[in-house]
Amino acid sequence: MRIPESLEELVNTFSQLPGIGKKSARRLSFHILTTPKEKAEALAYSIINAREKIKECSVCYNFTENDPCEFCENPGRNEKLICVVEKASDIISFEASGVFKGQYHVLGGYLSPLDGVGPNDLHIYQLINRIKKNEVEELILALGTSADAESTAMFIDKALGDFEIRKTRLARGIPVGSDLEFVDELTVLRAFENRIDL
Amino acid sequence: MRIPESLEELVNTFSQLPGIGKKSARRLSFHILTTPKEKAEALAYSIINAREKIKECSVCYNFTENDPCEFCENPGRNEKLICVVEKASDIISFEASGVFKGQYHVLGGYLSPLDGVGPNDLHIYQLINRIKKNEVEELILALGTSADAESTAMFIDKALGDFEIRKTRLARGIPVGSDLEFVDELTVLRAFENRIDL
Repeated sequence: MRIPESLEELVNTFSQLPGIGKKSARRLSFHILTTPKEKAEALAYSIINAREKIKECSVCYNFTENDPCEFCENPGRNEKLICVVEKASDIISFEASGVFKGQYHVLGGYLSPLDGVGPNDLHIYQLINRIKKNEVEELILALGTSADAESTAMFIDKALGDFEIRKTRLARGIPVGSDLEFVDELTVLRAFENRIDL
Repeated sequence: MRIPESLEELVNTFSQLPGIGKKSARRLSFHILTTPKEKAEALAYSIINAREKIKECSVCYNFTENDPCEFCENPGRNEKLICVVEKASDIISFEASGVFKGQYHVLGGYLSPLDGVGPNDLHIYQLINRIKKNEVEELILALGTSADAESTAMFIDKALGDFEIRKTRLARGIPVGSDLEFVDELTVLRAFENRIDL
């Protein structure tokens, strides 16, 4: 069946989004055609609007409408504490816990020699400069657990040389609300190694 | 955390799409912000473009850029055979099988007295007129298996009165490639009732 060209194009564009397969893309496209026109256009315009208004913060590389962003501008946030995350969306998860009152720094990915991602492709040296300039006291590496994440953490550690600073990373362990039987063995191993006295 | 307003709006609009929860909406929105600007805008413009160009076929209510649609216009498709589907996207699944060479008719939903959907909200009477006008010989009801679908089928059957026409519906049975143990008991029951001699 030849589906209308503009519909096919819509399906193709949707299926390039992360987590959207061919079938979901089709479903979304048909939804766009059946939903009231204003609703369909509202999606289009929020995409254009978001891309227009949102930029990277020139200090921490978080997404923001105003540069510097609300975290970097907020005097209530301790600039001596920097939490390093891979991508801007990680900040949302971190903020949801409400535990952190410092500032952030978005790396923009992990080092990955195989994919040709070197330190200059990320915001690593900007982080180092920021740490030294502001005499940051603690650096929290809130990075993932992949090999690339680990080597990125090691690279940052090395790049700081003997600059005096407390460097920490998030604890590995059993997720809250999870049961031992549902957790993989590496997580159990890490949870055991980092066990805490009662 | 206050996320930028235009980002929040994008997340909200995405999460109104079918099958997109809050987390996927956030993921899609951050993708829109990190993907090259042309790609993000391409999605926006394909939405606008599809809504602009695609309309309902005035004969069968399929989505089409040209009215009447390619099925209704195609002399190679038998107009004496009409396959009735709930929604335009069902035609794609049907065409993929390549088995049908007749024309389609999209109802636009099922009768649902509880939701206030009556026969005038669907394209039922248009179907009846079309059948009588073209002296259609076979009507295939390719509808779902819900109670609403069944009663819609019954309504169409009644509305045709004693107009002489072969009326069929799709067979119920074990899906090809599936195993008995994965199929629910109602499907097994139907498959048993409609068993075929070897």
